[in-house]
Amino acid sequence: MGDSICNGTHGKKALLSDPQLFDVQFEELVAELTERDLTDPALADALRRLKEVLEYNAPGGKKNRGLSVIGSLRELLPPSQLTQDTVQRALIVGWCIELLQAFFLVADDIMDSSVTRRGQPCWYRKEAIGLDAINDSFLLEASIYRLLRKHCRDQPHYIHLLELFTETSFQTMLGQALDLMTAPPGQIDLNRFTMERYKAIVKYKTAYYSFYLPVAAAMYMAGIESEEEHNNAKHILLEMGEFFQIQDDYLDCYGDPAVTGKIGTDIQDNKCSWLVVKALEVMTPEQRAELEACYGRHDEASIEEVKTLYNTLQMSTLYQNYEEESYQRLQKLIACHAQNLPHSVFLNFAKKIYKRNK
Amino acid sequence: MGDSICNGTHGKKALLSDPQLFDVQFEELVAELTERDLTDPALADALRRLKEVLEYNAPGGKKNRGLSVIGSLRELLPPSQLTQDTVQRALIVGWCIELLQAFFLVADDIMDSSVTRRGQPCWYRKEAIGLDAINDSFLLEASIYRLLRKHCRDQPHYIHLLELFTETSFQTMLGQALDLMTAPPGQIDLNRFTMERYKAIVKYKTAYYSFYLPVAAAMYMAGIESEEEHNNAKHILLEMGEFFQIQDDYLDCYGDPAVTGKIGTDIQDNKCSWLVVKALEVMTPEQRAELEACYGRHDEASIEEVKTLYNTLQMSTLYQNYEEESYQRLQKLIACHAQNLPHSVFLNFAKKIYKRNK
Repeated sequence: MGDSICNGTHGKKALLSDPQLFDVQFEELVAELTERDLTDPALADALRRLKEVLEYNAPGGKKNRGLSVIGSLRELLPPSQLTQDTVQRALIVGWCIELLQAFFLVADDIMDSSVTRRGQPCWYRKEAIGLDAINDSFLLEASIYRLLRKHCRDQPHYIHLLELFTETSFQTMLGQALDLMTAPPGQIDLNRFTMERYKAIVKYKTAYYSFYLPVAAAMYMAGIESEEEHNNAKHILLEMGEFFQIQDDYLDCYGDPAVTGKIGTDIQDNKCSWLVVKALEVMTPEQRAELEACYGRHDEASIEEVKTLYNTLQMSTLYQNYEEESYQRLQKLIACHAQNLPHSVFLNFAKKIYKRNK
Repeated sequence: MGDSICNGTHGKKALLSDPQLFDVQFEELVAELTERDLTDPALADALRRLKEVLEYNAPGGKKNRGLSVIGSLRELLPPSQLTQDTVQRALIVGWCIELLQAFFLVADDIMDSSVTRRGQPCWYRKEAIGLDAINDSFLLEASIYRLLRKHCRDQPHYIHLLELFTETSFQTMLGQALDLMTAPPGQIDLNRFTMERYKAIVKYKTAYYSFYLPVAAAMYMAGIESEEEHNNAKHILLEMGEFFQIQDDYLDCYGDPAVTGKIGTDIQDNKCSWLVVKALEVMTPEQRAELEACYGRHDEASIEEVKTLYNTLQMSTLYQNYEEESYQRLQKLIACHAQNLPHSVFLNFAKKIYKRNK
């Protein structure tokens, strides 16, 4: 995955890696969405705004989700079927996933009163943007369906992608609703932090769109439509998504900021993190009272107290155990459920995320 | 339109009028969206929230847009083809339009800092809602695609409705973007208030979803897919939409609150209303200076000064002239462009909106 020299295309693009092709495609797609296709001059100002919104919010992440579409498609189709058009469509569908994420992030940052995102100010915090960012987030979402219409309309996978994107969006919104009611900013109530709730939030808010969506999109593009095969893939990918989030939560506290590139704030932000949920499962009533008094507080002493408690409870060990168990479970799932799908689709994903330290 | 006694259905529902059927369908649809189809118990709290969001925000308006789907379909299909299933689908697609509107209104109210909507507090102003209303607005939008999927999936019009709703949403968002940059709350700049901009905002923000969308949906449901016929209908319906909004702007200032049921606030709210745009076209530089000093101000003296200026400029007469011209233009458009479509589809609409005083 990632090497397109031998993908049968011609010209300059054949020399580019998938990440490079992906970036080139973005420029093209911004031009399409904001210049070429809507020629009513009365819309010029609105389209200028859309261009700004796209360029500020869509790139800038790691783009793993978007790149997974072409990556998975390379595993699912023989090189002879990976024509230049097919590769381009996979890159565009990849960008649709990045746009879906941008749509959610712009809005989530408003709802969470976040300050920065991907090393720059959150869009709504920029001068003269404010709550107009809500409409901007809508424009990001709407761009998905304009791109699919333009590039996939004649393909047999068109209707499947439309349904996949609308369905996945709905699942993510349900996950966000659960998250907002479980950890409302400013209200600390550890009773809400159950493992069952934690897993539901992760599954709906993150795993569907980050893990199932890119592979499912590639499957439909490869002509794999059977519900059974999709359910099998979903089973494996949602398990991976859960692991990924738990690892993310672990690294927020135990990761090396020099490696992860960020300083965790889950404890002071009252986040429903795997660490606090797991800790609550194993702690004594006395420890729980202590946690009640210092979780979600911003003073350094409270934060340290939570960390000390985590160490006392050996959260690192509990995490290592979980990681090992999850890895074994996943290998079994892949062995039993991957069926006709090349295991590499899942193993590439798994390789990327297990034992990462950033 | 509106009378379903002779629509060939049986049982109790046959005795109900379209507005009554429409209300019954809403109860059913809330149950579908929030109980029947998602059985994961982990989602219970999120679906309870969705139910609340639907019930607070979707009904409560005049429902003209939603009712226009079944109304138009009754003109387009002979009674023999209006089976109970077809009527039910038209009611559901009508609710999809009402959901689209609810999605926009919930979000617009946040962006405009509005206080009330349809005689009750705006959703985001309710206790413990706040900016979580952003995710709630997303849920309203997502419900459209779940309903279409469930009820129209096997129909030849399914793909057309999906494209119609996503396309219309995008147009409405572009209109909202234009509106936000033309009259940003708190900034008064009359130079932005041109007739060209006014018409673009009305067309994109209101006319597409309020006028073209319901009739276009009914056309697709009746099997009318030709681009030419849709363009003709669009032409007529966008003209009506423009008239409707201009009339709305006129009534905001000149309507009788006892009849319209609301007290206009466009002048103090710095709205890009037809009245101010038209007045700017005909006033002297001295009058413009006067307007600059008092438009968008909340004190009673400033408001009165604007109204006096409007009277001096004979805005009422200018409006009557516009109304008469628009009516003639529309009659011609219908005569030339309605083609195979029964004129009654458009005339019913026109009858409802011309010379209304509320």
